[in-house]
Amino acid sequence: MMKRFSLQRVKNLTASRPLASASANSRFSTATESSFNRRTPPRVPNLIGGAFVDSKSTSAIDVINPATQEVVSQVPLTTNEEWDMDKLAKNITTEQGKTLKDANGDVFRGLEVVEHSCGMATLQMGEYVPNVANGIDTYSVREPLGVCAGICPFNFPAMIPLWMFPVAVTCGNTFILKPSEKDPGASIMLAELAMEAGLPRGVLNIVHGTNDIVNAICDDDNIRAISFVGSNAAGMHIYGRASAKGKRVQSNMGAKNHGIVMPDSNKEATLNALLAAGFGAAGQRCMALSTIVFVGDSESWVNDLVERAKGLKVNAGIEPDADLGPVISKEAKERICRLVQSGVDSGAKLLLDGINIVVPGYEKGNFIGPTILSDVTADMECYKEEIFGPVLICMKADSLEDAINIVNRNKYGNGASIFTTSGAVARKFQTEIEAGQVGINVPIPVPLPFFSFTGSKASFAGDLNFYGKAGVNFFTQIKTVTQQWKDLPGGVSLAMPTSQKL
Amino acid sequence: MMKRFSLQRVKNLTASRPLASASANSRFSTATESSFNRRTPPRVPNLIGGAFVDSKSTSAIDVINPATQEVVSQVPLTTNEEWDMDKLAKNITTEQGKTLKDANGDVFRGLEVVEHSCGMATLQMGEYVPNVANGIDTYSVREPLGVCAGICPFNFPAMIPLWMFPVAVTCGNTFILKPSEKDPGASIMLAELAMEAGLPRGVLNIVHGTNDIVNAICDDDNIRAISFVGSNAAGMHIYGRASAKGKRVQSNMGAKNHGIVMPDSNKEATLNALLAAGFGAAGQRCMALSTIVFVGDSESWVNDLVERAKGLKVNAGIEPDADLGPVISKEAKERICRLVQSGVDSGAKLLLDGINIVVPGYEKGNFIGPTILSDVTADMECYKEEIFGPVLICMKADSLEDAINIVNRNKYGNGASIFTTSGAVARKFQTEIEAGQVGINVPIPVPLPFFSFTGSKASFAGDLNFYGKAGVNFFTQIKTVTQQWKDLPGGVSLAMPTSQKL
Amino acid sequence: MMKRFSLQRVKNLTASRPLASASANSRFSTATESSFNRRTPPRVPNLIGGAFVDSKSTSAIDVINPATQEVVSQVPLTTNEEWDMDKLAKNITTEQGKTLKDANGDVFRGLEVVEHSCGMATLQMGEYVPNVANGIDTYSVREPLGVCAGICPFNFPAMIPLWMFPVAVTCGNTFILKPSEKDPGASIMLAELAMEAGLPRGVLNIVHGTNDIVNAICDDDNIRAISFVGSNAAGMHIYGRASAKGKRVQSNMGAKNHGIVMPDSNKEATLNALLAAGFGAAGQRCMALSTIVFVGDSESWVNDLVERAKGLKVNAGIEPDADLGPVISKEAKERICRLVQSGVDSGAKLLLDGINIVVPGYEKGNFIGPTILSDVTADMECYKEEIFGPVLICMKADSLEDAINIVNRNKYGNGASIFTTSGAVARKFQTEIEAGQVGINVPIPVPLPFFSFTGSKASFAGDLNFYGKAGVNFFTQIKTVTQQWKDLPGGVSLAMPTSQKL
Amino acid sequence: MMKRFSLQRVKNLTASRPLASASANSRFSTATESSFNRRTPPRVPNLIGGAFVDSKSTSAIDVINPATQEVVSQVPLTTNEEWDMDKLAKNITTEQGKTLKDANGDVFRGLEVVEHSCGMATLQMGEYVPNVANGIDTYSVREPLGVCAGICPFNFPAMIPLWMFPVAVTCGNTFILKPSEKDPGASIMLAELAMEAGLPRGVLNIVHGTNDIVNAICDDDNIRAISFVGSNAAGMHIYGRASAKGKRVQSNMGAKNHGIVMPDSNKEATLNALLAAGFGAAGQRCMALSTIVFVGDSESWVNDLVERAKGLKVNAGIEPDADLGPVISKEAKERICRLVQSGVDSGAKLLLDGINIVVPGYEKGNFIGPTILSDVTADMECYKEEIFGPVLICMKADSLEDAINIVNRNKYGNGASIFTTSGAVARKFQTEIEAGQVGINVPIPVPLPFFSFTGSKASFAGDLNFYGKAGVNFFTQIKTVTQQWKDLPGGVSLAMPTSQKL
Repeated sequence: MMKRFSLQRVKNLTASRPLASASANSRFSTATESSFNRRTPPRVPNLIGGAFVDSKSTSAIDVINPATQEVVSQVPLTTNEEWDMDKLAKNITTEQGKTLKDANGDVFRGLEVVEHSCGMATLQMGEYVPNVANGIDTYSVREPLGVCAGICPFNFPAMIPLWMFPVAVTCGNTFILKPSEKDPGASIMLAELAMEAGLPRGVLNIVHGTNDIVNAICDDDNIRAISFVGSNAAGMHIYGRASAKGKRVQSNMGAKNHGIVMPDSNKEATLNALLAAGFGAAGQRCMALSTIVFVGDSESWVNDLVERAKGLKVNAGIEPDADLGPVISKEAKERICRLVQSGVDSGAKLLLDGINIVVPGYEKGNFIGPTILSDVTADMECYKEEIFGPVLICMKADSLEDAINIVNRNKYGNGASIFTTSGAVARKFQTEIEAGQVGINVPIPVPLPFFSFTGSKASFAGDLNFYGKAGVNFFTQIKTVTQQWKDLPGGVSLAMPTSQKL
Repeated sequence: MMKRFSLQRVKNLTASRPLASASANSRFSTATESSFNRRTPPRVPNLIGGAFVDSKSTSAIDVINPATQEVVSQVPLTTNEEWDMDKLAKNITTEQGKTLKDANGDVFRGLEVVEHSCGMATLQMGEYVPNVANGIDTYSVREPLGVCAGICPFNFPAMIPLWMFPVAVTCGNTFILKPSEKDPGASIMLAELAMEAGLPRGVLNIVHGTNDIVNAICDDDNIRAISFVGSNAAGMHIYGRASAKGKRVQSNMGAKNHGIVMPDSNKEATLNALLAAGFGAAGQRCMALSTIVFVGDSESWVNDLVERAKGLKVNAGIEPDADLGPVISKEAKERICRLVQSGVDSGAKLLLDGINIVVPGYEKGNFIGPTILSDVTADMECYKEEIFGPVLICMKADSLEDAINIVNRNKYGNGASIFTTSGAVARKFQTEIEAGQVGINVPIPVPLPFFSFTGSKASFAGDLNFYGKAGVNFFTQIKTVTQQWKDLPGGVSLAMPTSQKL
Repeated sequence: MMKRFSLQRVKNLTASRPLASASANSRFSTATESSFNRRTPPRVPNLIGGAFVDSKSTSAIDVINPATQEVVSQVPLTTNEEWDMDKLAKNITTEQGKTLKDANGDVFRGLEVVEHSCGMATLQMGEYVPNVANGIDTYSVREPLGVCAGICPFNFPAMIPLWMFPVAVTCGNTFILKPSEKDPGASIMLAELAMEAGLPRGVLNIVHGTNDIVNAICDDDNIRAISFVGSNAAGMHIYGRASAKGKRVQSNMGAKNHGIVMPDSNKEATLNALLAAGFGAAGQRCMALSTIVFVGDSESWVNDLVERAKGLKVNAGIEPDADLGPVISKEAKERICRLVQSGVDSGAKLLLDGINIVVPGYEKGNFIGPTILSDVTADMECYKEEIFGPVLICMKADSLEDAINIVNRNKYGNGASIFTTSGAVARKFQTEIEAGQVGINVPIPVPLPFFSFTGSKASFAGDLNFYGKAGVNFFTQIKTVTQQWKDLPGGVSLAMPTSQKL
Repeated sequence: MMKRFSLQRVKNLTASRPLASASANSRFSTATESSFNRRTPPRVPNLIGGAFVDSKSTSAIDVINPATQEVVSQVPLTTNEEWDMDKLAKNITTEQGKTLKDANGDVFRGLEVVEHSCGMATLQMGEYVPNVANGIDTYSVREPLGVCAGICPFNFPAMIPLWMFPVAVTCGNTFILKPSEKDPGASIMLAELAMEAGLPRGVLNIVHGTNDIVNAICDDDNIRAISFVGSNAAGMHIYGRASAKGKRVQSNMGAKNHGIVMPDSNKEATLNALLAAGFGAAGQRCMALSTIVFVGDSESWVNDLVERAKGLKVNAGIEPDADLGPVISKEAKERICRLVQSGVDSGAKLLLDGINIVVPGYEKGNFIGPTILSDVTADMECYKEEIFGPVLICMKADSLEDAINIVNRNKYGNGASIFTTSGAVARKFQTEIEAGQVGINVPIPVPLPFFSFTGSKASFAGDLNFYGKAGVNFFTQIKTVTQQWKDLPGGVSLAMPTSQKL
């Protein structure tokens, strides 16, 4: 079992200076800066045992800039210029497409988990009870599991790896990270930073690939635990396959998050919140508030929502004025368009149509503008499927009870929010809603890392959620020690020992 | 989702008086007292929604007294005499075979979990952080899962059900208990007591059966979590099948617990501990210390062990002088005998042979006397398989390191103990041993319920162990609420909200 | 240091049956039943080392029934009739004066602390961290302090002793209880019950007296900690005097709890809450809501309040129709009347005058009917002093901010409540109010025992509040153990050991 | 109440780079580098509200280098050279006298508390229980107290301030630090670093002085809590005086730490440990192991101890070969010499006499060489008084029980250690010893900051120890909120609300 590495060194992960000086020997830089002139796109290296090595595989998947459709250069070339956190955000914008400001949030919310992990000595404490029976003490320690693995989605290339490996390695495990093949660059940069901050070689490893490597991770007897974030199909496959091998799995999956709008809410604030949570990151967040349930008289607000949505600027994420960037791939765009059309075909009203948008200068980008469908009902495919694009689905409910019922009948339970000024309404919603992360006048209620990311129902499989105390429990196992040092008693009793008799 | 029932009433579970007066309308009594004169053995009822109902199935499995081979009467007949906890222990002795003193320990260690569960308000507390960002609070609650189930083995008919349902129901869940078909009586009695103590009808349910009902439990979409104790074959089947359905599972399985004997240990105390932990309950405990590793000069102590083992009295558990009762079934006895013989065939020495024992007055009983095999090596079948009978396997090691290596190479990790007077030896053992429950001069290191039962490696599958804080986590899911009550800000930003920006 | 007594036995304190059978050898009964025919009122015994012994003092203080002015019989005479919890409540009503229903609440809220204390094994757990430096482990245990003492007020003769000694003794301490000399009976009854439940002789001791015994407790070097509830003059005297002797002290003192009424609140519910919290127990609760701040338009509700108050029935607590009983003594009544008159003299309006009430059948009782003063300002003596009687003081504020300022300028900080339907108002109040116990639509926000009683400002002196986790911390001290079992290193370094160098 | 400042910024306290760049505008440097040529020694500034201001007082106390008797320059003069952590250690060596290596330990163990404080979000969490009664929730938050103060001794000029203010300010308090007037330089440097790391102006304040300012701190009504480390006379004065004003006080005071040497211990390792813990920092640590109790045959080891002690090098702390530096002042040296002589006069044997040592080049220094007194008995003044110099007192005991009795009869309880190879001996010592910090083969058992510094008996007054969870509790107060949002019930009951009735 690996040794626990020094907290003194891990803490530097949170210091800005080491990040600022990581550039001199960086092996990796983003296409934005170095690869536009190249003909052959570079290959992203694996990181095995502390060394970056090229995969022996002869096949590869292109990393494509979703704003330009260009293949992104992946070979880390040394640059002489100052390297800082902006470079990490820029890489995210280049590979994933989101706006720079949003990419900064991606990095920032991941770093909060690093900071939280620096308190591991307190979080990982065992317990001690002296004299549980006459002369006998019991105590417990939380030991690392050994080798753990993480399988990541494309939508948060920095935050989600940082939900996983900082917790795992500060608990004393080694970690194998499989980033999304669509935007692996941030993971490589994070690994460089971690090693510079003192993470011993071999503790963090990165492997690339798709289905085959995922199955290999599920089946490998040396791997004890798997963290996954992604689709339900992949998540349930991994949960079942890896569990059958006796592994621990925590699987964060699909979502259909509802925002309930009460007529007593602050209209201005509510509409702004809905726009931000519905169209931010082009709707490609597992906590995107993709479905609005207008209760009673708030129904008429949908028109104001449409007007405001028209004001949002769709552009490449790297452009300063962008509110929405492209979606991740042509396939994703096609799927989103198909789901919108199915809604229209089923009777929904297309109040705002962003399907055919063209962004000047980025004509090949997978852009979709803000799209709003109203009069949606629970039987429509566009409601039942997670759209994962900048599409807001609007429904109506006669009462708070009706609205809660709509949410509770949905199979997902990642998050749900309500907008109201009433304490009683909020309390009823909080108590009765069947969703793991509840917002009260907060559209994206993702807890900070001293809590956990607590999706429920079909949005999560497993016992222990990501990060927070649950995350520490996931990456450790309890060893309990019972000791007796007094002179041992004579006489033999074969009866089951109890605290009275030990 | 079910309502949480009153702690005020649950606390009465720990009061002795309600137990003492449960007799008047008891629906169930053991064969020992009421059914010897009957021709048709009575059927054990199911308990569904608070009512005891006969199963509609026309097939049944006999409950057999392992000391007499008689079929045990299962219909609960009202008696007028005083009913008390001894009746529960007597039922265990009758159906399971263990001695009355051991049966009392079975009940007692289960009741400690009930007592622990009375502190659920503290154990289930959520957390609260005000002002995580400007004007925003986050807090968490631990909600019940809904319907949970438990599948129990034959060896602790009271303790293991009590590891499960008291924790589950005080967390707010309903529970379906499937006792072992070999000794279901204790579960029925416990359910009567629980309801008398105020457990609402329908919260605790009992169903009987074997493989088919187990599979039905794994597949039922309404069941959210399964607790299992039993064999590895069944445990891994359940873990895989129920996980594929998205359930939580905690599965305590097989074991091969080693006791390392250091030459500096207190010989007298150590030998007594080995006898008790190896032959108690006829070796049918998952924490039985079935394998002894004598280090260096302690090897010669094996002869003293044999002499002492000869002094143990084998008899029906109901007899006051019994040290060992019978094993659970004829099939179990046959399997044990086969494994002992295979050891002899492979070169082990049979220092004490209890195979052919006959107990006067209980000639049909599945009795095996204390049996000791020495010179066992790690490649023998009798070492690799869990014997689960009164058979001690003896091995030798040259050093502490060698002994630790033997244990760590074994696939199981339920428990391991060392006997020594040296602090340094104990600390090295505690640190390096790969077993979840470690004893230092304690042969059966089962933690009390404020800790958890922390078997590891192949002895356990799951993230969260039985009882203690882990048990509460297993039976609850976290809901996190993020609330904002200040006047909401104007302006729209679609970037990922961080604590800086919310 | 005393041994920890068995939790198995303590738990029985929570069972109703033992209480029900405590009568046969009860040494104590209330005047109501046994002493009306006596000429010489009996003396309350001390309880020393498990034996009830008469004090050697020749002086005594009469225990007077505040509804009749009769001296209450104090000698515990055995009765043959069924003894149950009602007897404890009846004793409280007899000696203290409150209604029977209120006396039952007094007992019930104390028993919740007993129940909570049964989870002491979890609450008192130490912590364990292996390998804090190379080969070194650190762990902690919470040890009892030794001898602790409690000094109690008259207003909750059962609840407040039960806030103290159950926590202290389950932590492993012995305890000296000094009840109020005005109503010592409940303490004696509780001690009988505790010993019957298994508390070893000598663990709980009771001494009677006034100032001299209090000073003796403060000065005694064998006493390590003092819990006090009572007036500010006594509390600060005890806090200073006992601290100078190096003791721990937790001192709950005076209060002036404000209820802020917002115009958006539910008028019906708010008025009912104000009546109950202002006049319940004749205002003799440290959490009584004695001052109402009407904000804005809610000012006019004061007239409805007066009308409702007129409907409350003043009678001896033993009478079934009583809403209010008498105040504790003639001196108390005189002081209350003087404060009311001072309010009138300073310009307050006496909207309801209960001063001259006469209760038929109890003409000598210290009764005061519901009394309401409006137009009170912060400079009046009736506002600055704690009245501790059935007198509601009404003030006005223009805004929430003004109302909060009124509360925050008051020196006390026991509790404060707001009545509103607005989540934002409640959140602002909760955040900005300087009081330790905050109610939102709850007039008497006393937390259940898994939390603590958290008065602040001049209402509390000390670091650690009563009951809950703070209570356990108060009655225990931490011992930290650092152990090293590896072969100790050669070489000498005199530098301060750090985790790097140890 | 002050605002909580950003954890994001506090975390930078743990980053090494900000420290490394603090030099450019440093207002303070040590005499070592800048003031040797000056005639008028500079004055140490106060730090008030974020600004360094000279005190208006016309009197001052010289800061004297104990190795040279020179007055140390205190005015912070800007230097252009690189400023790093060595400068902090060098200042400590210059003002306090200890060796550079020991000064580095002083800084390092303080920084560990800073690191621990970065996890404050988890440490300061409140608790949440929904539905404690029908529709009612209770939750708690830990609020800062307001203004807190710390009064520091001379012996750890960096570590002890860092035990105090990082915890206090991350809990949200402002802090007033009074360093020792003998070595205030480190505090000024730490304050500069804290502000550079983002601590808002005014949060940390430094005032200088002696008795008058200490009394002013005790009496000031705006100060809510005082942390003190120093002598018993001062500590009990402060504890009593500040408590009488209603303040919280935690007071770490004198010590007489015993090391029990068992004959079965590792002789080599034990002697090295005794030397290091007895003579390190010239014995001026509150956890110095100043008294050795040789049990049984280990008595003869005293001669080896003397031989080894002769090999220790006494020199100015700045010299690389120094094992011991000078004691803090001439007065301290005189007191130590007097206590040694009193031991000799009472019959103790002076086995090693370091009183008259002269260190070449530092002839005016307050040096004392290693000094060993044997045959000391419990009635001697040199045993009863804390010597606080490089003097080892040796006693004898016939058995472990005798040795434990010696320790337990001593009034102090800061720490005690045992040296043994026996698990049973260690466990008996740990259980029976009345000292707050217990070492098993560890001579100075000071816990790391996730535990607390847990001296007991006369070594500590207060409820809550320094740092760890107790430290967080000390600097915060609990606010408990009980909320009800359901429609409030009609009808009035004045009875004490219970969870059943609320």
